[in-house]
Order: sequence, then C-alpha cells, then structure tokens
Amino acid sequence: MTPRQGEWSLVGEGARQRIRERILPLARIVSALGLSADTLTVAGFVVSFTAALLCVAGLWLPAGLTVVAGALFDLFDGAVARVRGTVSAFGGFLDSTFDRLGEAAIYVGCVAGALGPGAANMAFPSIAGRSGAEVVAVLAAAALAGSQMVSYTRARAQGIGLEAAVGIAPRPERIGLLTVGLVLQPFVGWALGGALAIIVILTLITVGQRVRHVRRLAGSTG
Amino acid sequence: MTPRQGEWSLVGEGARQRIRERILPLARIVSALGLSADTLTVAGFVVSFTAALLCVAGLWLPAGLTVVAGALFDLFDGAVARVRGTVSAFGGFLDSTFDRLGEAAIYVGCVAGALGPGAANMAFPSIAGRSGAEVVAVLAAAALAGSQMVSYTRARAQGIGLEAAVGIAPRPERIGLLTVGLVLQPFVGWALGGALAIIVILTLITVGQRVRHVRRLAGSTG
Repeated sequence: MTPRQGEWSLVGEGARQRIRERILPLARIVSALGLSADTLTVAGFVVSFTAALLCVAGLWLPAGLTVVAGALFDLFDGAVARVRGTVSAFGGFLDSTFDRLGEAAIYVGCVAGALGPGAANMAFPSIAGRSGAEVVAVLAAAALAGSQMVSYTRARAQGIGLEAAVGIAPRPERIGLLTVGLVLQPFVGWALGGALAIIVILTLITVGQRVRHVRRLAGSTG
Repeated sequence: MTPRQGEWSLVGEGARQRIRERILPLARIVSALGLSADTLTVAGFVVSFTAALLCVAGLWLPAGLTVVAGALFDLFDGAVARVRGTVSAFGGFLDSTFDRLGEAAIYVGCVAGALGPGAANMAFPSIAGRSGAEVVAVLAAAALAGSQMVSYTRARAQGIGLEAAVGIAPRPERIGLLTVGLVLQPFVGWALGGALAIIVILTLITVGQRVRHVRRLAGSTG
C-alpha cells in the first residue's frame, strides 16, 4: 500500500489542497505585480529572520505574528511558481532550503531570547540546576534538532527514491505550535517552553515514523 | 564539468579513500564477530548520545574523546556493510539519519552544558547582556542549525537527482573542529566557543556553496 502524502499528519491533505486552491487567485495578483517565486522565497526568509531577531530581543508576541507573516510567504512562492509556469527543481530546492534556514533561525533566536530579556516573565520548571529560562533555551535547541531531523529524513529518503512525507509533525504543524507558544508567552509564563517541549516530542516521534516508513518501503521494493 | 565528491573540502577525497582502504582489514574482523552494519550504526549513535550527556554534565574533555569514539563507529558501519555485502539503500538512510541525530544531540548537550557546570572555566566575550557561557550556548545552537542545513542541502539535492557533496564543512570536518574545541576547553577557556563560532561560519559558507552548486547543475541540465 502506498501511503498518501501527509498521512497521520495533524493537518490532512484535503485541507492542504483546499488552501492551495483558495490562494491561487491571490497568487495570480502577486504574479501580476511582477514578483517571481524565487523572490518570494527569499522575502519569506527575510521575514523569518526578522522574527528570529524579535525572539533575540525577547519580543515574543511580535515575533509570533512575524512567524505567521513568514508562513504566508511560504504558501505563496509555490503557488506563484505554478501560476507563472516557472516550477523548477532548483526553485523547489531553494524554497525548501530557505524555509528550513528561516525555521532554524527562529529556534536559535529563541535560545538567545530565553537567555536575555525574553526570560523576564518566564515561568518554567527549573531542572538540574538550570533556571526555567535556561531549560527553555535547551528545549529550543532540542526543538531545532528535532525539526531539522524531520526535514532531513524526508529529503534523504527522496535521495533513494522513496517518499517519506509522513508523520505527525511536518513543518506547517511545527510552525503552528511554535506560533501559539510565542504569541501566548507574554500572558502565560510557560507557553513557549510548553510549545517547544511538545515540538521536541512530536518531532522525535515523526523521525521514528519516517524511519519505520522508509524501512517498510525499502523492504517492499528490494 | 562534474565536480568530484569532497571538492573544496578540508579533507580531500584522496585521504578519505586511503582511510577507507586502511580500515577494510579491521572491518573484516568486526564483521567476523557477527556485528552487522546496522548494529554498528545504532551503537555509534549510542556512543554519540553518551558524549552529549557528558557535555550536559560539563565534562568537556571526556565528551570530546567520546565524540572521537563515535566517529570511529561511523567509519566502520559502511565498511562492514561492504565487507558483508549488505550495502542497501535503507542501510545508508539509517546510517545518515543516526549520524545526524548523534551530531545534533552533541550540540544540544553543549547548549545544556554551557548553561550548567560546563560554564565553570569558560572565558568567552559577553555579548548584548549575555554572559560568555550564554554566548557559547547560543553559538552551539547556531552550529547545530548550520550543520543540519549543510546535511539537508545535500540530501535535498539528491532528491532532485543532483550531487551536492561540495563545500568546506562536511560532517567529518565539523566533528573534527568540535572535538578540538571540547578536548581543549578544560585548558583554554575560549576553546569550545571558538570552535563553535568557526563551525557556524564554515557551515553557513558551505550552505551557500551548495546552493550555488545546485543552481549551476540544475541550470546546465535544465
């Protein structure tokens, strides 16, 4: 049985497809403005990097809203490439690479923010002599590791001709969780730490799901 | 022109080839002991994870030596697969995934270690209100991001049929730099921070090299 893309994901493939259809008219407008898909890819990274700098400054709420803005760019670059008929292997590669660079920058920003002014209202359990904010910094690094590994397993599987876009925590879900944590942090002292802890757990499960999935596919084709 | 694997790398392909040949006799012994390549892959990850825990405890020198031990496992699993004739696409996938999981764990360990007992003898410049040890923690997160991105770009390029194993900071070089930083840290207060800063710079350059390389390859085949 070939599993469909997005299987076991928090946001189903049907919902993804509907979102893709709804943004097509907007993508046509963006395209008519003369913006190329690659330009949008780089612009999306710049927005994500801005979110990372806001994290460094401990401005969690503005950072969270900026993460959402970056995610919107991310929706559009692929749609614009389709509208303009400029879909290319390199465009997809550039898009994937900058998306993950932007995501990584945000997590590094969380590490720096939790070790600076962003620690001000943090209420998170202290563990093994580390303060609550320091624990959040470690969780941000672990969430970065887990997120990158989820993306890596899929890309590495594609390299051997297998599709491993399965698992409960692909990028849209991770970004959603992170946004909730960032936006709520000024009001709920454990929000960011809680969101990061959930991301760590879900991404490790996803890596396990993908390894199992690739083993099954490799076994059935070999 | 098809670039050879390892081009612009700190350790040339010739040296890699010689290492591979030299470990073959040892790989035969390991293989005769009944150890499979996949077992060695998982064992190597366990060793790297142990190094990560030593980092968390701030035991930098033992951590560095354990990283070297993990790297040795990493050399052997591929060689044992060749000797046993069990080279498989899934084995390569599992090896790559566990190698990067182990590397990621070590960087997360560095973040936690720098925010705990490992900060004891750290002498690193304080930046923007963060202590020297906190700066080292942020650098460890950034080095994690850069390292994962280097691996991601190669895997993602393979997914579109292109070989992007170029650049100055593939995994053996990164692990080497990290080991030097860890081993020297008890004696030189800025060693780990310095090594991590170099890894951040080299990995970002490598990501740039790989993106440029893929653009050139994609342009010439499209």
